[in-house]
Amino acid sequence: MDKMSTDALPLAMSSPEKRETVCIFGTGDFGRSLGFKMIQCDYDVVFGSRNPQTSSLLASGAKVLSYAEAAQRSDIIVLTIHREHYSFLTELTELLNGKILVDVSNNLRVNEHPESNAEYLAQLMPKAHVVKAFNTISAWALQSGALDASRQVCVCGNDSKAKQRVMDVVRNLGLTPLDQGSLLAAKEIENYPLQLFPMWRMPFYLSAVLCVFLFFYCVIRDVIYPYVYEKEDNTFRLAASIPNRVFPITALTLLALVYLPGVIAAILQLCRGTKYRRFPGWLDHWMLCRKQLGLVALGFACLHVLYTLVIPIRYYGRWRSRNATITQLMTKKENPFSASSAWLSDSYLSLGILGFFLFVLLGITSLPSVSNTVTWREFRFVQSKLGFVTLILCTAHTLVYGGKRFLSPSALRWYLPSAYILALVIPCTVLVIKFILLLPCIDKTLTRIRQGWERDTAVVKPAVNGKPDM
Amino acid sequence: MDKMSTDALPLAMSSPEKRETVCIFGTGDFGRSLGFKMIQCDYDVVFGSRNPQTSSLLASGAKVLSYAEAAQRSDIIVLTIHREHYSFLTELTELLNGKILVDVSNNLRVNEHPESNAEYLAQLMPKAHVVKAFNTISAWALQSGALDASRQVCVCGNDSKAKQRVMDVVRNLGLTPLDQGSLLAAKEIENYPLQLFPMWRMPFYLSAVLCVFLFFYCVIRDVIYPYVYEKEDNTFRLAASIPNRVFPITALTLLALVYLPGVIAAILQLCRGTKYRRFPGWLDHWMLCRKQLGLVALGFACLHVLYTLVIPIRYYGRWRSRNATITQLMTKKENPFSASSAWLSDSYLSLGILGFFLFVLLGITSLPSVSNTVTWREFRFVQSKLGFVTLILCTAHTLVYGGKRFLSPSALRWYLPSAYILALVIPCTVLVIKFILLLPCIDKTLTRIRQGWERDTAVVKPAVNGKPDM
Amino acid sequence: MDKMSTDALPLAMSSPEKRETVCIFGTGDFGRSLGFKMIQCDYDVVFGSRNPQTSSLLASGAKVLSYAEAAQRSDIIVLTIHREHYSFLTELTELLNGKILVDVSNNLRVNEHPESNAEYLAQLMPKAHVVKAFNTISAWALQSGALDASRQVCVCGNDSKAKQRVMDVVRNLGLTPLDQGSLLAAKEIENYPLQLFPMWRMPFYLSAVLCVFLFFYCVIRDVIYPYVYEKEDNTFRLAASIPNRVFPITALTLLALVYLPGVIAAILQLCRGTKYRRFPGWLDHWMLCRKQLGLVALGFACLHVLYTLVIPIRYYGRWRSRNATITQLMTKKENPFSASSAWLSDSYLSLGILGFFLFVLLGITSLPSVSNTVTWREFRFVQSKLGFVTLILCTAHTLVYGGKRFLSPSALRWYLPSAYILALVIPCTVLVIKFILLLPCIDKTLTRIRQGWERDTAVVKPAVNGKPDM
Repeated sequence: MDKMSTDALPLAMSSPEKRETVCIFGTGDFGRSLGFKMIQCDYDVVFGSRNPQTSSLLASGAKVLSYAEAAQRSDIIVLTIHREHYSFLTELTELLNGKILVDVSNNLRVNEHPESNAEYLAQLMPKAHVVKAFNTISAWALQSGALDASRQVCVCGNDSKAKQRVMDVVRNLGLTPLDQGSLLAAKEIENYPLQLFPMWRMPFYLSAVLCVFLFFYCVIRDVIYPYVYEKEDNTFRLAASIPNRVFPITALTLLALVYLPGVIAAILQLCRGTKYRRFPGWLDHWMLCRKQLGLVALGFACLHVLYTLVIPIRYYGRWRSRNATITQLMTKKENPFSASSAWLSDSYLSLGILGFFLFVLLGITSLPSVSNTVTWREFRFVQSKLGFVTLILCTAHTLVYGGKRFLSPSALRWYLPSAYILALVIPCTVLVIKFILLLPCIDKTLTRIRQGWERDTAVVKPAVNGKPDM
Repeated sequence: MDKMSTDALPLAMSSPEKRETVCIFGTGDFGRSLGFKMIQCDYDVVFGSRNPQTSSLLASGAKVLSYAEAAQRSDIIVLTIHREHYSFLTELTELLNGKILVDVSNNLRVNEHPESNAEYLAQLMPKAHVVKAFNTISAWALQSGALDASRQVCVCGNDSKAKQRVMDVVRNLGLTPLDQGSLLAAKEIENYPLQLFPMWRMPFYLSAVLCVFLFFYCVIRDVIYPYVYEKEDNTFRLAASIPNRVFPITALTLLALVYLPGVIAAILQLCRGTKYRRFPGWLDHWMLCRKQLGLVALGFACLHVLYTLVIPIRYYGRWRSRNATITQLMTKKENPFSASSAWLSDSYLSLGILGFFLFVLLGITSLPSVSNTVTWREFRFVQSKLGFVTLILCTAHTLVYGGKRFLSPSALRWYLPSAYILALVIPCTVLVIKFILLLPCIDKTLTRIRQGWERDTAVVKPAVNGKPDM
Repeated sequence: MDKMSTDALPLAMSSPEKRETVCIFGTGDFGRSLGFKMIQCDYDVVFGSRNPQTSSLLASGAKVLSYAEAAQRSDIIVLTIHREHYSFLTELTELLNGKILVDVSNNLRVNEHPESNAEYLAQLMPKAHVVKAFNTISAWALQSGALDASRQVCVCGNDSKAKQRVMDVVRNLGLTPLDQGSLLAAKEIENYPLQLFPMWRMPFYLSAVLCVFLFFYCVIRDVIYPYVYEKEDNTFRLAASIPNRVFPITALTLLALVYLPGVIAAILQLCRGTKYRRFPGWLDHWMLCRKQLGLVALGFACLHVLYTLVIPIRYYGRWRSRNATITQLMTKKENPFSASSAWLSDSYLSLGILGFFLFVLLGITSLPSVSNTVTWREFRFVQSKLGFVTLILCTAHTLVYGGKRFLSPSALRWYLPSAYILALVIPCTVLVIKFILLLPCIDKTLTRIRQGWERDTAVVKPAVNGKPDM
């Protein structure tokens, strides 16, 4: 091959390869990281700075100019400066007219200002096209390339062409743009990075309240009562025995609470005769955090399993087993094998194991990557059918565990029944109502309502044969 | 800033921001949800309805017009009506010519109609551009925004421009379009939401058959045999002991069946001297559901672990341990520590723990989000190398568990060997064949075949030095 | 509807639907698979081959022509031939000028050639636009559609239009293109499929070294020492007891090593008074593989849990419990219940269970699909706050386990302290330093540094009120 063509290569490389010039105002941590990332992705980056001379540590290949000079070089200007300093931009109004201003700022508190930073900027610079973006990405993530947390960049803006161009930049940086509509969405986008598991709050508080209540309930029954009547020191039960009573009850109750709103919704729909009336707010919220409730329940179930499996390793477990042997020998009693005890113990353990196994399966299918690969029919099958089987198995586990002791008067202490009886209240209620809803006559009506049939309209216009719309 | 520019803002907001107008025929559940989502994403939505007056509960911002009026407002018309009602569209043929008709319909059964709904629509409206889309998304998911199941929207259509426009809409709604080609694909796309774990069916049935067979096998050996000969009542074993015999055997057999098709394929390739001949259908299908087979096996292994760990908690386990102590005391026998028993028991437990640990690792790497982040070389390393180590460890676990009892004649009951011996048949076969295939002479030939070498062609055209193609 | 329009249908189908013609040079395994996939996705595929006549088994619908003929049919030519055979392309130089050559080749070893295959090709054909792509996808994956491993296709090239067109093809095949910049990136892209868990190497070797060291340490203390002094045969401990001592120590040490670099980095930042100076290379690397370190630690913790839970099932465990009972009976000693022992045993088990539970939670949140759905604030909360709680719980578990035996002189054997004391060195160091760093005065300075404050610059230009940049 000839020399000429090889010479042509670098030329070809430098010109069509570079995408465009992006200007970044501010040489702080985020500005530097973003600039570095953009240079990596073939962008020409120009920094705007108050003191272009003193700015060090910038990625090689980036120029640092004054704000005015930098702004002239590019259509897209990324503002990596704090909201309090936006006012200085008014000096550049002429220069920035018609340009795309990317607001990447965040606040320190939710709803810190009456309007979002991006809307404030849009008011300051009404002739520029303000686009909100990049605020959900961390500087550290951009720098290290280790985007362990979200790659999604929420973008919003009033000018759709400006938004589209910013979304292209986002895409070219290897991130996933998510169009959130007009600048009105900026407030929500700015609050997003400040949120801390909002959907988990209700399940978390609920389970905390349940745990504390059950803990004191068990302390009264298992520690204070024996101390008052028999002067027994049972405080050691606080460490493992009582947790292993509190955790399974919390788990079962929370699991039942996952299925309770569905049952309530069905009753509401039956009463109203339509599915087109909005549920009350609390029910909506409850239904939206069912997944989180279920996962918290699964966490407690796991703890219960671990606490149960260490029983034979615990000093108390070993002491009790040794004591039982010795007592039997001392009293010269026979030790006949009781098949019914074996049945009882084996069944409740089997029910528990199978219930826990299905529970873990439910947990795994709720992983985002797994639930993304299943169809809606499969998802509903797992979460609804398998979920109810899990609830039935776990309730049966508790029922059989109680066995003969169930409601025997000797189990009452200060009129307080055994703790596991409390565990059964909600699950049994849910299962009984669900069973009633599955009766053919009721189920048929419910299915029709869920397919869009309305009791009132059906009466009004019965002439149309069937409902044509989906 | 001046007043004028602020006045200009709303204008700028309303015009360039709105993307385009989309028309939705039908105001049923799905139509409403889709319309609501589109309005959220800046689309102008016009509903077409039989009775525009009576339609309530539509998202604010949407107009409801008659079908004809609505159709005139937009190029894209989404039909959220049932297939049976498509015929009314023929009245609008003139209006719909050249427009994009998006078919979102689903059926109630797989292959309900001879042709897909979309193809039927294309026949009815030959001059419109029919595109199939959105049928895999649920109305509830669109409404709540909680897209827990798939975000993927399969799209197909004969007109590529129409398809492209629909895919843009899909993308703008925050969903992921998946181009499936021409309308011929519509049938498959319509069947897709009806499917229920098609790849899991074979592993599921296989394991069910295995479980039932092994269950009865164990019942005969462990319950009926002792009852006939010693009048012992062993029925309590049905609850936990027999499951804990059935599950590990099923797990090990299924794990071996994951690696058997690879071994068969290797033998076939060696015999044929080429990899370019298609495998028989059953082998292809078997190879494609290896992942599911492995995960079912992992499920059974988990159950085995749980059942094993509760042994000391079970009444039977406690009774037996108490009995052993008492018997020893009664008979005044010594209780010398047997190092060989300790070795045997500790080794098979260790082998089991390590095997199970690797098995869980394999399971985790088969999670979509994990397998997506590894390279092919890493994936193959984990699934093939680690997989075989797992199989070896689990087989060794079973072999050492058998220990001295292995094939001792006293273990035969009615000529039936112990159940765990059945568990070893397939794993040992697979491991022996695999070992033979790893012998250098055979492995070399196999590697060459897998790199594209063909025995016959190699003989025919030896002139060409090597195979240039990949 | 009329016949005419139905006749028009196939015409409409055949012409606008086909996207474009792609030419594939080479009819090897990868070429065939890629061609088959492209035909599925509506591309017209033309194969170029040395012997167009003999090529069999190609997907129906694909033509096989000579190289020259095939090249004339398309702008995009995919080269599925090995690098050694690229030289024959020089014969086609005229034909290939201005065309897009897609290099899909891989090497057998990392850095096999001085320049990447794609760069070599670009030197051979300077007037063609070389784009590197598809080399990270396996032929088998394309064929079977079972893209279990990555769907990401790294693309790089000097001509951005050519690159864009190849990225469109990638997207149309249902894969995810990842723009990696200019051809300079080709080397890295070619090395990528050859890599085997590069980030896991350091954690893996580190844990292997730790395990081997601890194993021999325990062998000396628990097997050789008793043998030398008491002629006890403790070799059976090699199978389960010693692993269950080695694994927890390794797990705790690795977990502490996850948090050690953060602590070191904080000290460095405090000393330097700025966060803008690069950390030493080893610290950078260490920080980047913290996730892997943590997951390896979790693996060892899981093994520890399993080994602990089988203790009562092991022959040794059962023998010891039986022996304890018999000894007690023989010596006629009382068996009073010791509340303090119960407290101690229950607390260390509880601490261990809670620590392990949080550890598993940390592991789950590090799954890519989970960490993708959390915000940075949530991610940092889980990985840093919850992580430290986990470390505290696990360290406390070990401390309480030691209990009274802690540093008692009788525990020394050949001046070697108990192994679990070694486990405490790094965790306690990390926790103490972390505690010091959390003292208000130090924490305040650190926070300011991390927000971009610099000690030296702050002195130089104190006039500017605050730092405006983010």
